[in-house]
Amino acid sequence: MSRSDDRNLETVAALADQLRRFAQDREWQQFHTPKNLAMALAGEVGELLAELQWLTPEESIRLMADPELGGRVRAEIGDVMIYLTRLADVLGIDLVRAAEDKLAEAGRRYPADRVRGSAAKASES
Amino acid sequence: MSRSDDRNLETVAALADQLRRFAQDREWQQFHTPKNLAMALAGEVGELLAELQWLTPEESIRLMADPELGGRVRAEIGDVMIYLTRLADVLGIDLVRAAEDKLAEAGRRYPADRVRGSAAKASES
Amino acid sequence: MSRSDDRNLETVAALADQLRRFAQDREWQQFHTPKNLAMALAGEVGELLAELQWLTPEESIRLMADPELGGRVRAEIGDVMIYLTRLADVLGIDLVRAAEDKLAEAGRRYPADRVRGSAAKASES
Amino acid sequence: MSRSDDRNLETVAALADQLRRFAQDREWQQFHTPKNLAMALAGEVGELLAELQWLTPEESIRLMADPELGGRVRAEIGDVMIYLTRLADVLGIDLVRAAEDKLAEAGRRYPADRVRGSAAKASES
Repeated sequence: MSRSDDRNLETVAALADQLRRFAQDREWQQFHTPKNLAMALAGEVGELLAELQWLTPEESIRLMADPELGGRVRAEIGDVMIYLTRLADVLGIDLVRAAEDKLAEAGRRYPADRVRGSAAKASES
Repeated sequence: MSRSDDRNLETVAALADQLRRFAQDREWQQFHTPKNLAMALAGEVGELLAELQWLTPEESIRLMADPELGGRVRAEIGDVMIYLTRLADVLGIDLVRAAEDKLAEAGRRYPADRVRGSAAKASES
Repeated sequence: MSRSDDRNLETVAALADQLRRFAQDREWQQFHTPKNLAMALAGEVGELLAELQWLTPEESIRLMADPELGGRVRAEIGDVMIYLTRLADVLGIDLVRAAEDKLAEAGRRYPADRVRGSAAKASES
Repeated sequence: MSRSDDRNLETVAALADQLRRFAQDREWQQFHTPKNLAMALAGEVGELLAELQWLTPEESIRLMADPELGGRVRAEIGDVMIYLTRLADVLGIDLVRAAEDKLAEAGRRYPADRVRGSAAKASES
């Protein structure tokens, strides 16, 4: 694989393409309604939480230093990204743009000068 | 903004950069432990589910045709992407690669010829 | 076990007692902060969703007719109840009263005459 | 209301009765499929997590000392209990028995002598 192909694979649009073909090859589009995909997304987030639930905040910061735990967390994050990308794709939503739009809104709601260092204000990033 | 800048903004890496600066400007890094970010991610997924919970599968397929509902769902998906990107970033995980690795694994576990059209086998994509 | 003992075991207060002893016997109280228990609760809800995600609404209505699926769903619901009861207990919250108070509030917000048959209004029960 | 009535209201069975009537009065049974109720349950758990996400574990232990935060957490726990009770009811599952059965199983899987004080073993209570 050439370097530029490799780069291309890293974009969300390319991932969405791969996931669409994956579902088509298996005739799974019929199950991939937005409702079902949102449930699958939530299920994977639940598995991610289960990996972190008994860790102290400090342990969670260092978790990638443990290859086994780190590998499980990376795999769960991969699953979450799969369903999030697939959900956005079936709805025709550009995932990164949707995030950027929300971030721009958060920037207006939480001016740095007013909320600096405050957890109460961090409820939305 | 030039076309190439615009394109650049659409990558996950660029989004992660923006989110990192956003947190730094507000001194919110202290709250952004993996444990806390995973909870925030789950909270946003909960808001997404709340938008879809009473819809029939068919209604969920057509939801973007309703500008108000479609806008709310797009915003929730943006919030989910924000926290997922931020979580992966603080852990040093490449989000798209993690998804691609899991997809490759799913391809080996669920060969198209064996699982075609079966919901029971669709439990992991 | 006498009938009245049996009846007693069915109350939430008795379940909370059992869970408290279970944690004490294993010296797990240290892990049972409200934050951690809320994450564990969410993790179990994720497992429950995973059982239902590909079912049609109609299939979900009939799921207890399938002994294997029904058993798995019952077990997940049991896990959810365990963490919800334990969380309420460590916070000193009466679970059933908290639900009744919210139900009374929902009754005031959603008078039957005004919301009858409307999904849009069913967003909170 | 007499003391014995009051006591009666505290049982899960009585709460399930109230919720069933609440849904019937509003003709909301049509929306209350197990699939939809599981999503609503997850949505409420998401709101609960959002209240706890930026708290340290220590802050989460003391949260009921803050009347405003404590009130919000109690209300979210009430909402979670409402949907969990309603879900179990439409499936014909006894919530407390399901929890007790899982607790008995956990007791066999995690003998106190073997798992004492270990977070790794606390992954299921």
